[in-house]
This record gives sequence, structure tokens and C-alpha cells, in this order.
Amino acid sequence: MTQRWQKLIRQLQQKKYRRQEGLFLVEGEKSVLEVLQAGWEIAGLHCTEAFVADHPGLAMHPALALTTAELLGKIGAMATNERALAVVAMPPDAPLQYPDHGYLLALDDVRDPGNLGTILRIADWYGMAGVVCSPACADRYGPKTVAASMGSFLRVPAYTAELPEFLAQAPDALAVVGAGMHGQNAHQFRFPGAGVLVMGSESHGLSAAVQAQLRHTVTIPRFGGAESLNVAVAAAVLCDRIKGK
Amino acid sequence: MTQRWQKLIRQLQQKKYRRQEGLFLVEGEKSVLEVLQAGWEIAGLHCTEAFVADHPGLAMHPALALTTAELLGKIGAMATNERALAVVAMPPDAPLQYPDHGYLLALDDVRDPGNLGTILRIADWYGMAGVVCSPACADRYGPKTVAASMGSFLRVPAYTAELPEFLAQAPDALAVVGAGMHGQNAHQFRFPGAGVLVMGSESHGLSAAVQAQLRHTVTIPRFGGAESLNVAVAAAVLCDRIKGK
Repeated sequence: MTQRWQKLIRQLQQKKYRRQEGLFLVEGEKSVLEVLQAGWEIAGLHCTEAFVADHPGLAMHPALALTTAELLGKIGAMATNERALAVVAMPPDAPLQYPDHGYLLALDDVRDPGNLGTILRIADWYGMAGVVCSPACADRYGPKTVAASMGSFLRVPAYTAELPEFLAQAPDALAVVGAGMHGQNAHQFRFPGAGVLVMGSESHGLSAAVQAQLRHTVTIPRFGGAESLNVAVAAAVLCDRIKGK
Repeated sequence: MTQRWQKLIRQLQQKKYRRQEGLFLVEGEKSVLEVLQAGWEIAGLHCTEAFVADHPGLAMHPALALTTAELLGKIGAMATNERALAVVAMPPDAPLQYPDHGYLLALDDVRDPGNLGTILRIADWYGMAGVVCSPACADRYGPKTVAASMGSFLRVPAYTAELPEFLAQAPDALAVVGAGMHGQNAHQFRFPGAGVLVMGSESHGLSAAVQAQLRHTVTIPRFGGAESLNVAVAAAVLCDRIKGK
């Protein structure tokens, strides 16, 4: 691997350089194969010889560059990656639209990249209409988010938007439902057919500006002593309730 | 902090020494306050002066030893801990019993300590009867498990047992329900009043020996493209379905 690639790969672990270059990293055998299959534009495909031997279709890929397991483990963000790393072009965000049916998930300052990636995976499992991130959320293209999403970043439409404005302009027909501590019992609430489900940050919950835009608040009932649930766990429970009465 | 304490605290990051000494680490302001309040036996209470100034009741604690934020950050397992660390005696496990009502969660080789801690927090939120870990699960007293449980390790009865034997001897009245890929739809399944919910490992699902003991298998319905859900996320969705029809 050239020094230039090594430098770029290190830089792409920082959001600043990802935005500047319009590129991000996908690491690990499974995710690299998925990004190839999804047809996203690949700027660099750094693989070991053993990996190419296992997937001979890659041998003619125009961006292929052979490298060693040792170097992959050293320069990537994922210490356990010893087979493949792709440098991928960020696609432009699709225009953000309100859903006709189903639910968008909106995330109000979910700052932990592992949580964001897990939420993308959950949104994918439940076939949600998409995920809207407030600007202070973790970067959707950060290596920890990409890894935690287990390939779901390829399938879930994702957007960045200022949530108070986005929610304020939601059509009247949409439910704007926030997850909070003192809302209606999520086991009894009847989710309307289309809407936005808003999840708050790990430490502060929903911001006041977002709360002011909610049309409903729901609460997952608690039966024991824990003070809270992790935001990704709470998102999954509510997506499950949206999808199955 | 004496050299002896420093050595012990470093050792207690390894399971071998935790078992040998019967001690484990609790790190961070909130968790240390919770373990004190719960009345668990404290062998060493290492705090900064600022922490004791904020919590003057601690000044007379017999195990108190003042230390510095710098040293706490350096010797503990949690790099962000700069206030307090407790060395706590492991309580003996309570005798494992089948529940009369409600559900035990049984974990078949859940090896990631973050997942195990998150599951303890979920079991606490939903007031589950307890958590039974197979011997290959992550250590319940490891620092990452304790941190991820957010204090729930203090409240949730937890046990270690060989699951095939434990499930084989379950009374006829109990539901033995496994979470799998080809079971009944969890949105339609009517969970009987008392039982054991068995979750498989992150990578291999339920082992054959455990599957042989199941009386029901349930599947969380999928509406999109993700291949699977994280084991803690799936446990939460199923606990939520057990508690709210």
C-alpha cells in the first residue's frame, strides 16, 4: 500500500477529512463484500491475497490493491480487521421527505457511534422509512457507526436535518411521537399509520425545542429498578410496537 | 494508593484474579454510590478528595483511601473514571430456582461483556425474575459488564448454570421459550405466565443441546433487510412482549 493511501486511510478516521474528501471507510470481510454488491462507488479496495483467493471475482476490480493482514490491522480503525478495507465514496443524501406510510426514526443528538450504527441496523430490520439525524448526532459515515450497522447503512435511507424545523413542518396527517419518561404507555398507544418516532440523546433525552414539536409522547413501561434503557434498545422496542400491535 | 492496592486493582481486571480473591471492581461516581447504598461489602474505596467533599458521608467509611483523578484514570479499566473506584466482595450466588411467575432470562454463551451488562439493565427495567448465564458467557463481574449494567447488577438476581440440564429439569408448568430464526411470530405468541426465555450467542445462536430442551421457539418478525438483531436488542423486544401483550 502506498504511503499516500496509508495517509488517506488514517485521515478518514476523522470526520473533517471524510467531509473534505467525500470518502469513508468500510472495514472487514462481510461489510466490504456487501458494499461491493450494493454497487457503491469504491475509490480503493485494499485486500489480502487470501481474501482475493476466496473471492476471485475481485481480482479484476479496478480499485484493487493487495496488502497484508498486518498493515490492515495497523492502519484501519478496526483492530480486528485482517482481510479487507474499502475506501468508499459518500453518496449524496436523497431529498428528505415525510413518509406517506410507515415511520421515520428521528434522532435528537444521539452522539455515540455504536448506538447510531445499532439504530441503523434496527431501522433496517423493521423496514423503517429512514433515519433522520440531528446535526449533533454521531457521524453516519464514521468507522464505528459503519461497523455497528452491520451493513445496514447500505439499505436504510438516512438524512441529516435540524429536527425542530423538520418536525414543525410535518403534515397534519403524520404522528410526531417522542419517546420520553412521562408519556402514554407504549403498550397501549395506537401508533397511527404514518409518522416520525423521535428518540432523545443518551444523556439528556429530548431537547426542549424538539419536545415543543411533539404531537404525542410515549413511554416504555418499567417493571423494575433500572433508571433507563439504552437509546438503541428503546428504539427497537418502539419499532417493534409500531410494527406489531 | 499503596503499591499493593494498585497491583490488586490491575489484577482484578482479569477473571482469574477476581475468582481467586472473591473481589471485583466498580468504577465511576454513580456506580460507586449505588454499590455503597446497596450495602454490598466494600474492601477498598478509592476516591478523590473532591468526590469525598461532594459526598461527606463517605469521610468516615472504614475502607476509604484518598487518591488522585490521574491515578484512577490510569489503573482502572474505565479510562474516563476520575472520581471513585470500589473494590467489592462478590456475594455468593443465591440458589437457582425456577420461577413461580414471571420469566428468567437464560443466556447461552453471550460472550460480549457489553451485551451481558446491557441485558442485566434490560432484565432490571422489565423486572425479570433473574438472569441465568451459561458457563461460557462473559463474566458477570467483569468491569465492562458492570459498567454496561449501569448499576443493575446490584438488583437483578444472576446465576451461572449449565443450561441444557437446567432447562431439562424445568417443571412442566414452565414455558421454555428460545429466541430463534424459524419460530412462532413473537407478535402473536402468547407467553404463558411463567417460564424461561433463552437467548443464543452473538455468533452462533442457540446451541443444539439447548435447542433440544425448548418447548417453544419464537422469532421477532423482520420487515426489512438486516440479517439479525443484536442479542441485547432482541432480549429487550421479547421482554417487552412478555410484559405487554
